[in-house]
Amino acid sequence: MIISKAHRTKAIGIFDSGIGGLTVVAEIIKQLPNENVIYFGDTGRYPYGPRSREIIRKFSKQNVNFLLEKGVKFIIIACNTASAFALEYVRKMYTVPMIGVVKPGSEAAARLTGNGRIGVIGTEGTIVSSSYQKELKKLNGSLKISAKPCPLFVSLAEEGYIDKPAARLIARDYLSEIKQKKIDTLVLGCTHYPLLKKVIGNVMGGKVTLVDSAEQTASAVKDTLTRLELDNPSKKTGEKRFYVSDSPEKFKRLGERFLGKRIGKVNLIDINAY
Amino acid sequence: MIISKAHRTKAIGIFDSGIGGLTVVAEIIKQLPNENVIYFGDTGRYPYGPRSREIIRKFSKQNVNFLLEKGVKFIIIACNTASAFALEYVRKMYTVPMIGVVKPGSEAAARLTGNGRIGVIGTEGTIVSSSYQKELKKLNGSLKISAKPCPLFVSLAEEGYIDKPAARLIARDYLSEIKQKKIDTLVLGCTHYPLLKKVIGNVMGGKVTLVDSAEQTASAVKDTLTRLELDNPSKKTGEKRFYVSDSPEKFKRLGERFLGKRIGKVNLIDINAY
Repeated sequence: MIISKAHRTKAIGIFDSGIGGLTVVAEIIKQLPNENVIYFGDTGRYPYGPRSREIIRKFSKQNVNFLLEKGVKFIIIACNTASAFALEYVRKMYTVPMIGVVKPGSEAAARLTGNGRIGVIGTEGTIVSSSYQKELKKLNGSLKISAKPCPLFVSLAEEGYIDKPAARLIARDYLSEIKQKKIDTLVLGCTHYPLLKKVIGNVMGGKVTLVDSAEQTASAVKDTLTRLELDNPSKKTGEKRFYVSDSPEKFKRLGERFLGKRIGKVNLIDINAY
Repeated sequence: MIISKAHRTKAIGIFDSGIGGLTVVAEIIKQLPNENVIYFGDTGRYPYGPRSREIIRKFSKQNVNFLLEKGVKFIIIACNTASAFALEYVRKMYTVPMIGVVKPGSEAAARLTGNGRIGVIGTEGTIVSSSYQKELKKLNGSLKISAKPCPLFVSLAEEGYIDKPAARLIARDYLSEIKQKKIDTLVLGCTHYPLLKKVIGNVMGGKVTLVDSAEQTASAVKDTLTRLELDNPSKKTGEKRFYVSDSPEKFKRLGERFLGKRIGKVNLIDINAY
């Protein structure tokens, strides 16, 4: 089947529990500047991290329905918790190609480690699901993996507590166990964590490589679009559209910190209707 | 109209965004041990603090519908954000008597202050709504009020970060402005904050009285039930029933810390169906 040009110019759909996934959008802008993007941030129901698998699956299905209604050609689940709990579930229900953030982050970590000892940090949901641990083991059964949930990192990033002494103390508490395991690679398994890269890097020390899932995911999307001949042939800069389920003003204000760029109009939708 | 005994033995309905409102239940158990209680914790949609007025109103209406279906005689909105944004809204829609946590907390603060300088801390929603500030001004126009949102306190309380150095540093940051205002009374305008009483008390110093809204609300409910002849005449210890919109196991585990007692069965419901 030859994919029509009209299909290739359709947008990439991205959803996340809120603003965290904008770190993925920032990487898409860098690596795939001509792609159109439709982003949905589920600010009316965030955070996903502490919620159950059943509810995350229900939410993810609604988010996919919304993006499909907008006519996207490809879907990125830019939320680690939703990738962990719901990617396989929604993949079975739809034909549109989908990618999460767990696999790209894991592949990068498995490639980058020298001593085979990898750390993974994320929300409670992501860590308890063992998604990163399983994915890494699949890539290389001999890897030694240490995982640790760091739930307070999300609120610290959102409240801008990213370079204060309290953030350092909490990071030290959370990371001490993993540090003792002599890991040389640490996966930031939550889209909020790249904002705390400096604090996390200082606590872990210069010899530990931090793997930013956002960056790895954008690069995996680029490869996949090319392989599927779904990449946008247009030379123009792609359009970015933003939708949220609550507080568009707040999304705009906080989101600009995550995206590193100005955000235009943010549209409010009722996600429970999908 | 004489209220039948059957009506008086009905339960008090209480809702909160999650586990915080259990501090109100704990006070009800202390002050009104023979009352039956039906508690709904909206764990599937918490936190309420950062969300918009529109969405909090919609959630509150659904929560009230659920409690009414369970046949309650009285409703307590045990969440500061919902009290601030939605109490007047839902009161207009229903005949069942309702009480929030803002008025009882404000009354206690106005009564307890010596120098007329009162501080209020709460979530972003509660503080931005100015509900405490307006309520206090209504009680006494000459009061000097300083208010400050402390959003990270909620996650700190939930993660058990209640007596660690990081909690003290964050409390110092948040409270320094209010402290300079020479207040003698501080309203803990969020049901999570009583768990941080010790840290907050240490930062504010021994001369500042901390007003716990949960305690004041239970006492206001007691007065009101008696006045309305809705108090339960039974001498037996009341039954407590718990419902949540996600993760019953987690609610049970974390909730016991807030309630100070064991929690029996926790029932899962679909709140979006109400």
